[in-house]
Amino acid sequence: MADDSTPSSAQLAKVTLSNAPSVLKAEFSDRVLIRSIILRPDGGSGLAGQTVRIGGWVKTGRKADKDAFAFLELNDGSCAGNLQVIVKADKYDLGQLVQTGTCLSVDGVLKLPPDGKKQKVELDVEKVVHVGPVDPAKYPLPKTRLTLEFLRDHLHMRSRTNTISAVTRIRDALAFATHSFFHKHGFLYVQTPIITTSDCEGAGEMFQVTTLISGAEKLEKDLIENPPPSEADIEAAKLNVKERGDDVAQLKSAKASKQDINAAVAELKKAKDNVFKLEERSKLQPGIPRKDGKIDYTQDFFARQAFLTVSGQLQVESYACALSSVYTFGPTFRAENSHTSRHLAEFWMVEPEIAFAELEDDMNCAEAYVKFLCQWLLDECREDMEFMADKIDKTCIDRLAMVAKTPFKRISYTEAVDLLIDAMKKGKKFENHVEWGIDLASEHERYLTEVLFQKPVIVYNYPKGIKAFYMRLNDDLKTVAAMDVLVPKVGELIGGSQREERYDVIISRIEEMGLPVEPYEWYLDLRRFGTVKHCGFGLGFERMVLFATGIDNIRDVIPFPRYPGRADL
Amino acid sequence: MADDSTPSSAQLAKVTLSNAPSVLKAEFSDRVLIRSIILRPDGGSGLAGQTVRIGGWVKTGRKADKDAFAFLELNDGSCAGNLQVIVKADKYDLGQLVQTGTCLSVDGVLKLPPDGKKQKVELDVEKVVHVGPVDPAKYPLPKTRLTLEFLRDHLHMRSRTNTISAVTRIRDALAFATHSFFHKHGFLYVQTPIITTSDCEGAGEMFQVTTLISGAEKLEKDLIENPPPSEADIEAAKLNVKERGDDVAQLKSAKASKQDINAAVAELKKAKDNVFKLEERSKLQPGIPRKDGKIDYTQDFFARQAFLTVSGQLQVESYACALSSVYTFGPTFRAENSHTSRHLAEFWMVEPEIAFAELEDDMNCAEAYVKFLCQWLLDECREDMEFMADKIDKTCIDRLAMVAKTPFKRISYTEAVDLLIDAMKKGKKFENHVEWGIDLASEHERYLTEVLFQKPVIVYNYPKGIKAFYMRLNDDLKTVAAMDVLVPKVGELIGGSQREERYDVIISRIEEMGLPVEPYEWYLDLRRFGTVKHCGFGLGFERMVLFATGIDNIRDVIPFPRYPGRADL
Repeated sequence: MADDSTPSSAQLAKVTLSNAPSVLKAEFSDRVLIRSIILRPDGGSGLAGQTVRIGGWVKTGRKADKDAFAFLELNDGSCAGNLQVIVKADKYDLGQLVQTGTCLSVDGVLKLPPDGKKQKVELDVEKVVHVGPVDPAKYPLPKTRLTLEFLRDHLHMRSRTNTISAVTRIRDALAFATHSFFHKHGFLYVQTPIITTSDCEGAGEMFQVTTLISGAEKLEKDLIENPPPSEADIEAAKLNVKERGDDVAQLKSAKASKQDINAAVAELKKAKDNVFKLEERSKLQPGIPRKDGKIDYTQDFFARQAFLTVSGQLQVESYACALSSVYTFGPTFRAENSHTSRHLAEFWMVEPEIAFAELEDDMNCAEAYVKFLCQWLLDECREDMEFMADKIDKTCIDRLAMVAKTPFKRISYTEAVDLLIDAMKKGKKFENHVEWGIDLASEHERYLTEVLFQKPVIVYNYPKGIKAFYMRLNDDLKTVAAMDVLVPKVGELIGGSQREERYDVIISRIEEMGLPVEPYEWYLDLRRFGTVKHCGFGLGFERMVLFATGIDNIRDVIPFPRYPGRADL
Repeated sequence: MADDSTPSSAQLAKVTLSNAPSVLKAEFSDRVLIRSIILRPDGGSGLAGQTVRIGGWVKTGRKADKDAFAFLELNDGSCAGNLQVIVKADKYDLGQLVQTGTCLSVDGVLKLPPDGKKQKVELDVEKVVHVGPVDPAKYPLPKTRLTLEFLRDHLHMRSRTNTISAVTRIRDALAFATHSFFHKHGFLYVQTPIITTSDCEGAGEMFQVTTLISGAEKLEKDLIENPPPSEADIEAAKLNVKERGDDVAQLKSAKASKQDINAAVAELKKAKDNVFKLEERSKLQPGIPRKDGKIDYTQDFFARQAFLTVSGQLQVESYACALSSVYTFGPTFRAENSHTSRHLAEFWMVEPEIAFAELEDDMNCAEAYVKFLCQWLLDECREDMEFMADKIDKTCIDRLAMVAKTPFKRISYTEAVDLLIDAMKKGKKFENHVEWGIDLASEHERYLTEVLFQKPVIVYNYPKGIKAFYMRLNDDLKTVAAMDVLVPKVGELIGGSQREERYDVIISRIEEMGLPVEPYEWYLDLRRFGTVKHCGFGLGFERMVLFATGIDNIRDVIPFPRYPGRADL
């Protein structure tokens, strides 16, 4: 450690390494990213002769030439590929270095490998700077091929695998692409609350956020260590008050000195305070505070019942109705007992909201956004996508390319139902019954996008009975201006709608659906004062990662999956 | 609503408006952003003669020329400035349009105003497309100047005010700048979990996340509607089993037909099942499930106690120890009963983590990041920053410029304490005692950055006794490689450290601090297998917004503030 006047050894190392060419991406470390070497158009061959510091973890290692040196495949997470590193036996104990998972920081010279090798450049190590060893007998990730299911039991280590690290880079790219897209189109990022006292109606079961239980546990412990006063204690304290009162009366009638009377009055006050304290303490009840037979939420942290958000939509609408184009991108929660490969208790959602816009604008935005994401991955994550195509899903790159360039098919719900009925007439079997008014099942959605149109499909104008109160009622009075974007591989990727901006209509929709009006008063204010046509949608971010990567289980595309019975780390 | 074959009226409107020049930023709406007109270098004068659709809310309006027309200042949230809009009396009821808060969508022609006016362009309305009226007698935001405190009681409307909308744009810019900075430097965005079963030691009180209370409430309701069986019910059911058993025995001894015996056996089974069900139901206890005198968390959603995260650091470290450079940017929570202007129960943190890096790299990264944010606001948010300088804090632009270009002063904790003691010798008074070993108080930090150095200060190498177990022990065995970045106006903006990568040292630090080892086993694995030198820091995002804007209260720089007693919306 050094202050700014004396250069540290780390700084000196950087000076030595500053002959590294400018193409090597500098960061806040004295090493260079492996990506900046091997992902060059020339595969790094143009850097031959340069001295660099590299850090990473050994993917595979082997000794060669009668243990005279070792070949190590080193990966630093900056890309899917590894840099081949050659260490001679005089530099370090090679038996240690060749273990999978070993961390290594080395200085060396980049050089061209002998002809016929796959890699375009390799590193000849001059100095081993740091080694983080691995005992192969204890390492939780043996070299054998590991299943994604096995890796879910090792969340803290799984980012060291090729698949999870590629998923992480693709997820990162999709997040940055999301912010870039909305920024480019003039949307403001509004961070809606995680803890909420509103319910986005119908979105599902909510987790409760509370300090009542920990408060009750603390109190319970305290009452055991320090039991509440008995009735006898309180009676004794009351008797004391009476006696001290008598003292004062006596002194007064005896015309005692002011000093003596004041002292006695002070004693009396102390005795009264003591009774008050004992009485308060005797009222303490172990357990969660209750009032009138119900839990007393006025004693909870927020003085009312609070939950984890299921959607930022209602809140972000309040910003759209002032700032026109906004979006939220954050975690959302469902306390549903779903054990499927498509559901998580904690997942991320992207929710744009656009004022002065109608359902068609909403569809245009959704289509442009999804296309933008697909094109971004094709442009920026080629190497990781090729890994996915090779190991997980052969069709994933073609799927991205198709979605990026094909106009989405747009059909009304009514047309969609007609098409499904037609298909059944031609012999297609569905498990779920089809008729106008049903909520389309996943099998129906996937049939439309995967079989019938073989491209993304936007279904719009759904029956009002199956949709939320805030969706705009169409002139037919039967449907609402909702839309879902269906894509091959995952089915529903986006759900959105034009919002009901007419005060009279939304009020009657709330009543029609039997919902209480009071919790929505603030939401109704947006319609009472300066109301505006607006629309928005939500994209389940993990579904987009599933769509892009071809991974089957949603638990493998979020760093720390939460589902019933599991919240590791 | 139209499908893709027949153009809708909205599409037709767009065609009509397509003569708008290309500088007008298109979005998913048929209007153009006011920003794209008035923030042009020429103030929009070059657009005179163009027909455009504009949407926004009336900031102020007045009738003129004996009510022949109205002047309206229209704002759409895309920038701080308004577009002046002129509506003639034959177009609409002007009395309605001039009300503050009215929403308006209009088509009109941009024209140069008469000489001597401040604005460079104004809009002459040809057609009023939409009006969202306001009843001024009921509007919650009267035209008089409103305090930020008053606005906190109207969270859903406050983004309509100049100050909160400017803060929102600045906050958006800081978020985008954050992602841009880390993306540029090769960091991957890792979304760490919100719900966690780990505790980032010492970070503070946690909110509990549970479904036990709602489960208990549901059960309680169910038991009232459908009371559990009485002992008599169960006895009766048991008697029934006995009788059905007797039936079977009788039939068997009477050598009845197989059919009759089977029927009796089936009856017996039904009777037994019924007893089992009644007994299970009779065990149901209202209230939260308990076992061995404690709450039975195996029955909670995650089968264990779960909390809202106080920091993503520990989890993001697991990704840094595989992918080298990562960051998390998400909400974090503290269940502390703080009623100050600097604390929130829910706030956003930016936490980068860098492998192959030491404390000095950490300081370099923190300094570069803060400078980048400041320069970004100077470049991208000039107009909003000028508004802040005008209305909130005269010094805010100068402060950004100073931080963007001045090297941060770096001093060790020991030097900092010496400097504070020197200052006291020269007559400076502090409320909190100063000696080596204390945690610096806010007054000390602000003295260093605001008075002594008048620029950002990084204090590093703190006494180990006041810092967390995961900070790397220095060779002096007394201090750890921690660092805090102090800036004028807010004091501590960033806290970070090099992490202890040595297994033996971190284990003894955990034990020395009296912490249990078991919860950190996964964290220790990162040191057991392929350990790497690494470091990181956390920036309180709202503190950065306070620093940038000069706003005093943190509740005014997050869209939906949560603090004790309040979680509106």
